[in-house]
Amino acid sequence: MKKTILSKVSTGAPKNADKEKIKKETEKLVKEIGEWSEKLFAERKQSILIVLQGMDASGKDGIAKNVFSHCPPLVIDAHPFRKPTEEEMAHDFLWRVHKWAPGKGLIKIFIRSHYEDILIQRVHGWIDDERASLRLESINAFEKLLQYDANTTVLKFYLHISQKKQHKKLQERLEVPEKQWKYNPGDFEESKLWDRYMHYYEEVINGSAIPWHIVPVDHKWYRDYTVAKVVCEELRKMAPTYPTLPKE
Amino acid sequence: MKKTILSKVSTGAPKNADKEKIKKETEKLVKEIGEWSEKLFAERKQSILIVLQGMDASGKDGIAKNVFSHCPPLVIDAHPFRKPTEEEMAHDFLWRVHKWAPGKGLIKIFIRSHYEDILIQRVHGWIDDERASLRLESINAFEKLLQYDANTTVLKFYLHISQKKQHKKLQERLEVPEKQWKYNPGDFEESKLWDRYMHYYEEVINGSAIPWHIVPVDHKWYRDYTVAKVVCEELRKMAPTYPTLPKE
Repeated sequence: MKKTILSKVSTGAPKNADKEKIKKETEKLVKEIGEWSEKLFAERKQSILIVLQGMDASGKDGIAKNVFSHCPPLVIDAHPFRKPTEEEMAHDFLWRVHKWAPGKGLIKIFIRSHYEDILIQRVHGWIDDERASLRLESINAFEKLLQYDANTTVLKFYLHISQKKQHKKLQERLEVPEKQWKYNPGDFEESKLWDRYMHYYEEVINGSAIPWHIVPVDHKWYRDYTVAKVVCEELRKMAPTYPTLPKE
Repeated sequence: MKKTILSKVSTGAPKNADKEKIKKETEKLVKEIGEWSEKLFAERKQSILIVLQGMDASGKDGIAKNVFSHCPPLVIDAHPFRKPTEEEMAHDFLWRVHKWAPGKGLIKIFIRSHYEDILIQRVHGWIDDERASLRLESINAFEKLLQYDANTTVLKFYLHISQKKQHKKLQERLEVPEKQWKYNPGDFEESKLWDRYMHYYEEVINGSAIPWHIVPVDHKWYRDYTVAKVVCEELRKMAPTYPTLPKE
């Protein structure tokens, strides 16, 4: 497989992309995702796990809100992974993750995920290379288990933002009243570790058994379109159907 | 590693074993296990997972009761795995297991376990060989994760009973009032599949990354002694200590 080098991947929409056309296309895709999601729920044979990973302000919450806006709450659920609790820390790193795996018929969105345990933890040197490599092996085994034993489709998105765009968005959190609740002074500190993050993101992306989708997120309209397209195409392949009554 | 052939392993105590001496020795071991368990709890750095697997009436509950009788309930907990619920069936087979993994400082006993998913399920042909082999791979990855990432010692015991002894014990459940609550008419039916069970137990024992302890259980006093000895020796190696106050 071709090795991904993030610095060579654009964070913005392609130059020739037609914004208005793409926004309309996204609207259609989002509606179609909603329709498929109701069939998925009725069928109860398959599930989807969406993993959203990216730097602060890369648009995780926005994607969850926009792309799945037509999925009923019975079907869709988003779980944010924050700093582990004391009880979570007393277990292996996948313990708190596994319990949120989607049951059949459901779509689960992970806002951050088990990948933080080999990203932030490596950037800060809280775990060594050996532990990180064992954890990646465990993650690959875990995702394989979800696929073959629970019929879960695992879709992983790396939200690729430029540092410039990130700073602009973090600054907005200081200035716009409706965004201030997201402000965290630590975010600017974390942003200084940009190159280390990119290095370990690359390792994760290139070491995963299940491939990542790299999403340019500097333009929201193109970001939502990219994710919606992947999700919708996957649902078409999964093709859930409404169960019919038995013939008797 | 030498391959285990269960039909060649005795289900009873060795001929020359001194019953009274061994009972006294067991009593000492059980007390020592209790002492270690309190240190384990105070230290909060390591944990133990005890897996008890065996045919019906092979003494799983009895071992949990006798060997850990000096461990305070804050430290020890036994979880019986029964027929999966509808919600559990909607997930991968390790989903319901992972959540009961012991936190640091704790001992967890699994009365039956994730191994049922490649035992009873194979005996009855509910899963095929390919699925069984993937599940064994997942189990090995799962137990490795517990060991390296949560500092959990995984101790697995196969309780080796003769079919003759099993029938005697199942019959008692019909006749002794205090044992009738354990009676299940299906147990006699299941016992007819003895050879198939032995075949798949052998596969599990020989295919596991973490080795199994094979416990002859036809004599309770020798059964309890064998398990207590393994657990106590392991605790001596783990050697948990009471944390001391910082010097300041």
